[in-house]
Amino acid sequence: MKKYRVGILGATGTVGQRFIQLLQGHPQFEISALAASDRSAGKTYAEACAWKLTGVIPENVRDIEVTPIEPPIDCDIVFSSLPSSVARETEEAFARAGFPVISNSSSYRMDADVPLLIPEINADHLGLIDIQRQKRGFGKGFIVTNPNCAVVSFAPPLAALHRKFGIESVVVTTMQAISGAGYPGVSSMDITDNVLPYIAGEEPKVEIEAQKILGTFSDGSIQKADFDVSAQCFRVHVLDGHTASVRVDLRETATLEDVVAAMKTFPSLKLHSSPEVFIDVTEEPSRPQPRLDRDNGNGMTISVGRVFPDNVFDYRFVALSHNTVRGAAGSAILNAELLIDRGVI
Amino acid sequence: MKKYRVGILGATGTVGQRFIQLLQGHPQFEISALAASDRSAGKTYAEACAWKLTGVIPENVRDIEVTPIEPPIDCDIVFSSLPSSVARETEEAFARAGFPVISNSSSYRMDADVPLLIPEINADHLGLIDIQRQKRGFGKGFIVTNPNCAVVSFAPPLAALHRKFGIESVVVTTMQAISGAGYPGVSSMDITDNVLPYIAGEEPKVEIEAQKILGTFSDGSIQKADFDVSAQCFRVHVLDGHTASVRVDLRETATLEDVVAAMKTFPSLKLHSSPEVFIDVTEEPSRPQPRLDRDNGNGMTISVGRVFPDNVFDYRFVALSHNTVRGAAGSAILNAELLIDRGVI
Amino acid sequence: MKKYRVGILGATGTVGQRFIQLLQGHPQFEISALAASDRSAGKTYAEACAWKLTGVIPENVRDIEVTPIEPPIDCDIVFSSLPSSVARETEEAFARAGFPVISNSSSYRMDADVPLLIPEINADHLGLIDIQRQKRGFGKGFIVTNPNCAVVSFAPPLAALHRKFGIESVVVTTMQAISGAGYPGVSSMDITDNVLPYIAGEEPKVEIEAQKILGTFSDGSIQKADFDVSAQCFRVHVLDGHTASVRVDLRETATLEDVVAAMKTFPSLKLHSSPEVFIDVTEEPSRPQPRLDRDNGNGMTISVGRVFPDNVFDYRFVALSHNTVRGAAGSAILNAELLIDRGVI
Amino acid sequence: MKKYRVGILGATGTVGQRFIQLLQGHPQFEISALAASDRSAGKTYAEACAWKLTGVIPENVRDIEVTPIEPPIDCDIVFSSLPSSVARETEEAFARAGFPVISNSSSYRMDADVPLLIPEINADHLGLIDIQRQKRGFGKGFIVTNPNCAVVSFAPPLAALHRKFGIESVVVTTMQAISGAGYPGVSSMDITDNVLPYIAGEEPKVEIEAQKILGTFSDGSIQKADFDVSAQCFRVHVLDGHTASVRVDLRETATLEDVVAAMKTFPSLKLHSSPEVFIDVTEEPSRPQPRLDRDNGNGMTISVGRVFPDNVFDYRFVALSHNTVRGAAGSAILNAELLIDRGVI
Repeated sequence: MKKYRVGILGATGTVGQRFIQLLQGHPQFEISALAASDRSAGKTYAEACAWKLTGVIPENVRDIEVTPIEPPIDCDIVFSSLPSSVARETEEAFARAGFPVISNSSSYRMDADVPLLIPEINADHLGLIDIQRQKRGFGKGFIVTNPNCAVVSFAPPLAALHRKFGIESVVVTTMQAISGAGYPGVSSMDITDNVLPYIAGEEPKVEIEAQKILGTFSDGSIQKADFDVSAQCFRVHVLDGHTASVRVDLRETATLEDVVAAMKTFPSLKLHSSPEVFIDVTEEPSRPQPRLDRDNGNGMTISVGRVFPDNVFDYRFVALSHNTVRGAAGSAILNAELLIDRGVI
Repeated sequence: MKKYRVGILGATGTVGQRFIQLLQGHPQFEISALAASDRSAGKTYAEACAWKLTGVIPENVRDIEVTPIEPPIDCDIVFSSLPSSVARETEEAFARAGFPVISNSSSYRMDADVPLLIPEINADHLGLIDIQRQKRGFGKGFIVTNPNCAVVSFAPPLAALHRKFGIESVVVTTMQAISGAGYPGVSSMDITDNVLPYIAGEEPKVEIEAQKILGTFSDGSIQKADFDVSAQCFRVHVLDGHTASVRVDLRETATLEDVVAAMKTFPSLKLHSSPEVFIDVTEEPSRPQPRLDRDNGNGMTISVGRVFPDNVFDYRFVALSHNTVRGAAGSAILNAELLIDRGVI
Repeated sequence: MKKYRVGILGATGTVGQRFIQLLQGHPQFEISALAASDRSAGKTYAEACAWKLTGVIPENVRDIEVTPIEPPIDCDIVFSSLPSSVARETEEAFARAGFPVISNSSSYRMDADVPLLIPEINADHLGLIDIQRQKRGFGKGFIVTNPNCAVVSFAPPLAALHRKFGIESVVVTTMQAISGAGYPGVSSMDITDNVLPYIAGEEPKVEIEAQKILGTFSDGSIQKADFDVSAQCFRVHVLDGHTASVRVDLRETATLEDVVAAMKTFPSLKLHSSPEVFIDVTEEPSRPQPRLDRDNGNGMTISVGRVFPDNVFDYRFVALSHNTVRGAAGSAILNAELLIDRGVI
Repeated sequence: MKKYRVGILGATGTVGQRFIQLLQGHPQFEISALAASDRSAGKTYAEACAWKLTGVIPENVRDIEVTPIEPPIDCDIVFSSLPSSVARETEEAFARAGFPVISNSSSYRMDADVPLLIPEINADHLGLIDIQRQKRGFGKGFIVTNPNCAVVSFAPPLAALHRKFGIESVVVTTMQAISGAGYPGVSSMDITDNVLPYIAGEEPKVEIEAQKILGTFSDGSIQKADFDVSAQCFRVHVLDGHTASVRVDLRETATLEDVVAAMKTFPSLKLHSSPEVFIDVTEEPSRPQPRLDRDNGNGMTISVGRVFPDNVFDYRFVALSHNTVRGAAGSAILNAELLIDRGVI
């Protein structure tokens, strides 16, 4: 199989490192370029990067010379994990230079002509790419995005319910892992023996992204799903794995069995990084737990538990996903696999 | 001032230790009896107790001989922090033997003739005591209770809103401290780098206790407040301090300023353990936090923050209280102070 | 290849679970029997076990019926992770019944006729088995042991130095992970925001086991290595991975390069669970770290760093190993592989 | 009593905040000036400071306007908690401008004419001040320092032994709290489920400062104590409280009782911040522990436990002190009290 040569923007950061880790031994991709801030450019990756994942820097990237974050770089596909402060301008420059930009940044997620993808849910939103190319004059380049890491933890079970029963409203309280803030990110003085009730900018992102992801693509645009979302977002002392406490009102009546079945039977895809089970629903009373379940399906499965009727809403449940795999680098890689599978790349 | 002699049932446990700590230097109470399981009875408190609070066992209790948990014990007032498995029978025995039993256990909280007290909110529920004595043939003994530690964190701001605007429904997600499970309680293998989505029996307690606390006493019984409550309860890696993420629908229209003012102006009492401010509302975006705010008002103040309009409900906010002070021993002591102040003791 | 059928004593405990995890897909062993306390016996493993490792109970053991911990059980080889309170009597019974007992318990470690094995270091101590069989009248059964998990973290680099330069004395301070205490083990109330300066029975174990491991087998007995060992043992807030701070006085002069080379070149074996590198010495100033390095060599490599000349001793260094893999189940499995390789089984 | 007006350099940092907290209600000092980096200068303290200690910013400093860190500032005494990068030049400027500079920084600690004080141990080193003034032409200004926070945890018991029996050599392994690194300091990604084996620059500081503190002042200079010190320094997941694992060889023979008595009877002083007990020796096997014992004596007592004969050294023990109280701000305040008591200020 032909291997696509991929470049990573923001390669030394937390998500950049996760990209490198997840791409080890990938049958479709090989890493050919690593771009990072001017401070790192010119050094080898081993010199530039303070590796924070388990183990040491993989051999295949140790000696790659880090390049500045500007096009062109030596690759077929660009993965971007740039901070949102620089992502908007830089990702556009890469798209304009002809690169497929598969972004984990928040900059373009809510742009009307940019797909916000969870491949199992809304692969048809890829239809926006042609519109985007025309509107922005991008040539063969384009931008696709994956959602905020907190949204990913509960959007899949929501999609399962939305498709079968319709959704009236959703209330979610998230308990998010420290790795979501990158490195050095959250000070140990802030999170030890503590909960932080505030993550800058997070609650609005969670509230609006869900509606777009579950929206309908027709006539060249996304019609957002018309349910209300309320999100309160907390940081808790967990390394990886965002937990969401969810209540939902459905449009149609559904039994508990219907609800569980809708989640369990929501199909996964057949892409390389697709988990065997997309939504794993457990009846174990004390699951899901981030430390035990975040690696479910190599970090690509959404774990759901404690599905019960609720006193105020129709149902409640707890959902969990790995925030730097399914919620970041893994999602972007899955998006790239989807783009190849659908012939866009 | 005459000092009441108090006995503590379950004196060696986490809450028992907190009773002893909070009673140091108390102007109205002196500790005269410490009762604990048969394993401890006959030893001195210093021998029987694995002290887990900061510092060492206070001098005034070190040499007290621990007695079995059965009446009579040598005191005027009994504080009970017994596990619910034994509390029901034992507390009744003490009440029947003529002791005022001020209980932190869950056993009697929902009994129709037992006050479930937060003194600032429902001191008039003390009217149940006479009815209780008659019904149960208790003589001068009686039982009063304080709420579940998770309920205490959000019932006060709720009471403030209930009194002014009425409440239609409430949705709460709690993030509870490990000390709530006692000692040894939560295994470090379970909570390190983790969140537990299940606390046995907690969600129903939280859902029903709030309605009783905010209920109305008339014609010799409590009419429960008629709003719906939904609770999802989580254990997070925090030593002390339960955090609640709350949404609420009001019966009457209220502006954000109204809502904040209702909370801020809800009066504290003038009892010895009363905090100067009962509900402390902050506009600081990243507060309240358990580590920084649990000791607010010596652990007796409810800290509230992030009060905002909500997409699905009328309002949302975050509330926090110290679960072993305001949520347990401190509440019980405040109840005792109230009983003296109102002439019941 | 013929697969040996193995039974696990104490199968529901922390180390028992690790045995099951590490034996997944093992080419030489298949699990045929799981024994646990009377409380568990008769249930399926899935019913009896509160699984605490990442993920869920492996399919191949879910439905095995747990048997009581008494011989015979249906297997060729017995792995024992029994608590020391019951290990002595039970392991003897299994050995007497003809089973090779490969024990992680401390009960027999210091018995003169029982090998205390780190295969890379003292495989020749297997010569004790014949003596043991004769002395105890065991028939074909026997007992071999692996060291205390704290000893394993620093005995390998010590062995490297001992072999080349001789050792005069060793001072070690350990910082041990909570998983070393099993489950529920260390209360979260004890270890959160804390260090525990005491682990019951640990310091003497660490001090005496090192001398036996590095001892010489001749004339049918082990001559202990004649250096002094001082150990202070602490529990720190780490899930897995024991860290040891070590100072050592050598008998012969050695340069820093000599010391590092002795460690780096100490050979690994060619057994299935042998790591490629036995002792991995890093010059990275802030390594080894338990979270990043405990899985080095699938948890079977010893990671060493910060090797420097010392003001009081000749050299100092930091050593780290995975306490439930190399320090427990992984060591026992390696011992079994060694026994097969040497034809003892 | 006349109150001295004090200024704090580096007032917004972790130690600066601790100064403010410890000076609340101090009978001899009132805060009159707060100096911080240019970024903060001109703002009120409440605007400039991200308060990280329990509770909220004290009323008496909220509205003080932060000044730049250059002399003169409006005060009688200067407390400095400047980072060492700027401390050397700045502290000299303040001393030259006539201010007594009581510094927590490492810059001048090892200068031959600057006292490195633990008041209970070496108050006579104040004799260096006159020499310092002459040598540097300081006029009435001068600089005194307190030791590195890790040294403070074990230097007091060492001083007790040194004075009675003489010391040959000392080996110490420290387990240091995260607050020692300031704020934001240690990333939560680094310390969660982890131990860090390296603190930049710490080991040499610990090794040399102990010798100066226990040195002898005569003929206008300090003769360093002539024992060898070996230090390995680790960061562990503790908020406050440095723990030291210590072995010591004495020059004279001493029984265990002698050793314990020497520590227990080492006198405290009668200064305002002096603890009643300077060195608190416990026989409790599992103490001292940072969370339970760091506040011993309001954070000014050194807690010692696990004093035992050692296999390699004469004795071993565990020592603990509060690193931002006795190890930083509290020490500096005690130094100021000493300077007043001895008539230097």
